[in-house]
Amino acid sequence: MSSTKSVTIAGAGLVGSLIGIYLARRGYKVEIFEKRPDMRQKGMEGGRSINLALSNRGWWPLKEVGLENQVQDMIIPMAGRAMHDSSGDLTFQPYGKEGQAINSISRGGLNALLMTEAEKAGAVIHFNCTIEHIDFDQSTISCVKDGKPMMHLSDVIIGSDGAFSVVRKFMQITDRFNYSQHYIEHGYKELSIPAGKNGEFLLDKNALHIWPRGNYMLIALPNKDASFTCTLFLAFEGERSFSQLKTDDDILNFFRQDFPDAFERMPTLLEDFHHNPTSSLVTVRCYPWVKNKTLLIGDASHAIVPFYGQGMNSGFEDCRVLNALLDKHGDNWDKVLPEFQKERKPDADAISHLALSNFIEMRDLVGDENFLLRKKIEARLYELYPEEWIPLYSMVTFKEELRYSEALRQGETQQRIMDEVMRSPDIHERWMDLDFRSIADRLKAT
Amino acid sequence: MSSTKSVTIAGAGLVGSLIGIYLARRGYKVEIFEKRPDMRQKGMEGGRSINLALSNRGWWPLKEVGLENQVQDMIIPMAGRAMHDSSGDLTFQPYGKEGQAINSISRGGLNALLMTEAEKAGAVIHFNCTIEHIDFDQSTISCVKDGKPMMHLSDVIIGSDGAFSVVRKFMQITDRFNYSQHYIEHGYKELSIPAGKNGEFLLDKNALHIWPRGNYMLIALPNKDASFTCTLFLAFEGERSFSQLKTDDDILNFFRQDFPDAFERMPTLLEDFHHNPTSSLVTVRCYPWVKNKTLLIGDASHAIVPFYGQGMNSGFEDCRVLNALLDKHGDNWDKVLPEFQKERKPDADAISHLALSNFIEMRDLVGDENFLLRKKIEARLYELYPEEWIPLYSMVTFKEELRYSEALRQGETQQRIMDEVMRSPDIHERWMDLDFRSIADRLKAT
Repeated sequence: MSSTKSVTIAGAGLVGSLIGIYLARRGYKVEIFEKRPDMRQKGMEGGRSINLALSNRGWWPLKEVGLENQVQDMIIPMAGRAMHDSSGDLTFQPYGKEGQAINSISRGGLNALLMTEAEKAGAVIHFNCTIEHIDFDQSTISCVKDGKPMMHLSDVIIGSDGAFSVVRKFMQITDRFNYSQHYIEHGYKELSIPAGKNGEFLLDKNALHIWPRGNYMLIALPNKDASFTCTLFLAFEGERSFSQLKTDDDILNFFRQDFPDAFERMPTLLEDFHHNPTSSLVTVRCYPWVKNKTLLIGDASHAIVPFYGQGMNSGFEDCRVLNALLDKHGDNWDKVLPEFQKERKPDADAISHLALSNFIEMRDLVGDENFLLRKKIEARLYELYPEEWIPLYSMVTFKEELRYSEALRQGETQQRIMDEVMRSPDIHERWMDLDFRSIADRLKAT
Repeated sequence: MSSTKSVTIAGAGLVGSLIGIYLARRGYKVEIFEKRPDMRQKGMEGGRSINLALSNRGWWPLKEVGLENQVQDMIIPMAGRAMHDSSGDLTFQPYGKEGQAINSISRGGLNALLMTEAEKAGAVIHFNCTIEHIDFDQSTISCVKDGKPMMHLSDVIIGSDGAFSVVRKFMQITDRFNYSQHYIEHGYKELSIPAGKNGEFLLDKNALHIWPRGNYMLIALPNKDASFTCTLFLAFEGERSFSQLKTDDDILNFFRQDFPDAFERMPTLLEDFHHNPTSSLVTVRCYPWVKNKTLLIGDASHAIVPFYGQGMNSGFEDCRVLNALLDKHGDNWDKVLPEFQKERKPDADAISHLALSNFIEMRDLVGDENFLLRKKIEARLYELYPEEWIPLYSMVTFKEELRYSEALRQGETQQRIMDEVMRSPDIHERWMDLDFRSIADRLKAT
């Protein structure tokens, strides 16, 4: 199959557009089918501003396709978490070392840039195009565009059409396709903190703000226009839940009491609350990712919850790894496809697992004394032995050359060691006297 | 909703027909939509004979609807496992106490009886009817029968349309529906041991025959016509697998070497092997089972692998439990539906888990010395304290009043105790000297 020349991509989202750039640059005839209209024409400024956290794993492929400078202009670095307690008091926890940060970026803005770049590279994007059927034996996609059916044949099909992938839906009814979709108990709703009267940011702009409240939380990420997009994560049902917020008073009282310093900066709270949907949070796992010449990537094969900020980053990493395998095997897709799924599946499983556990950490543990001490000890270990004891969050977020699965493995070892350390007598008073060298050495022993 | 009068059932299989009997008898207007033609007219004798193991949980509802005598005539009791080793030598392990047995029964025969009984009770079965859409808000099913579309409205919809349920497929795309389908590495193929020249059974007819071979196995269940239906369970890929059985010689050598005493009784082996499909084995888990007035039951909500012989039995138990809840709540479905799913889900999860683990036991452990001793000690405990130490298999198979989830819980406790017992010094020589009373007492301590 070294004569492969044409690739069909389902979905012109972040991942579909990026893989489109890579493949068009490699000389493939790339056609992308996107069910939505062209967001660049409709004027996306009118809609809600949704932002994502771009970190090292996402940066790498963006640099590789030469978009570093353009993306640099779109980001706001966030060097750590700013935690807001119920009285409005703040604590700051840096994410990594001096100079390390994750970056708030507009989803729409980045997507538009990637689409345009894919087109420049030669890819054709067909908008308003609904996939009706996929024939995996023939590698054909049947679509409907503007009411007219069309059939498209290509050498390879890439399904990058998101968590509710239509390509995957057709794979799911083939024999021996393992699949799961699991929703957490919590939903989310986007809200807003607008810019101040003089166009200034009303909270520290270089932080990811968190109002952790045990079973739920509010977060806020900065936008380029000096506003913040806030997201409330709350259970659908139960004592403190969306189901309990029925009247305007319920909503106002909840925010006034639980998030006082955010509340006073949210003049459009009620409007936002009623207008924006309450959305659910799903984890999708499946295998295989390959059926004949069709491959699933990004959310289509491994949709994860957003709590590690790695959804987009892991999808971009898929693109980078796929491109590297095409280099390695001289574009022999018969070798690339099976190797891709075999190599990437453990990494997708690892970040999926980490994303679920980080919700507990964000909403609950960040206010816990033992947790904070544990982080302090780990930070000290990192400071003393920066090549040996790298905290899990740093491995996932800043060490882009390390596989997710390896980060998880090392993180689990660290956790076992730290569980023991935390059982030391009077640890809260005496932690500075710990033998840090011997703690770090235990990593090697395992 | 106490004025509910009409119920639509998707699927006229074993479970759909049985719940049809229950509901028609309760006075509901019952219509059943079945995609296949009427098996009673096509002459199912022409097809393969597939048999199932009917045990106490399945018997209970069949008795409840008054079919005991008719079913009695259709069964062949199997009092235990007849294990065949590679030399053709036999060992017999009774399933329970004197008089306890599981029962081989023809799937087709039982299904036909249940359909006829449902019709007698007033249910109408529409054959050749494909479901095209379900509207959960309106409780309407859109079907196509003989090329003509029809729309059907009812107060309640019951999806009993099996492991690949169409009703569930529509539930799956509603928000917050948790779903997983997982295939094991093994597939199965049905084969046959015909009756002898004089119409006699060629193996002991009152046993379930097993040829356990570590990673794979052959089993055989008796039919009323003195034949046996055999099932080969084998990995799809790998060293010993379906993928390795390419030529007729491969097949013949495999059977001759691994199952010699079965092989010599299988004159149609090659014909069967080529003619019958290699089928996959799926576990389906999902939740919720209820969407507005639509309920999933049987394989549609909890398809399991066949290794505990509980697929049909658990589906029939669903029917009995649903009927009992209708009694309890005076046919108030608003109470019945949520209570049903809440009560049954842990039981479905338990039998799903047990069915997967029993594959290991059947194919592998039944030939293991430690396993056999463990079974011997447990049998002794059961003999001495029949009200206290009931082996897990007996709880699942013969104690129909005990919930699956409770059987699993007690079984796990027994396992922990037996793990300790098996670590006693010289256990193989000295097991008769164990203090059985104190072992049984540990059950109460937990």
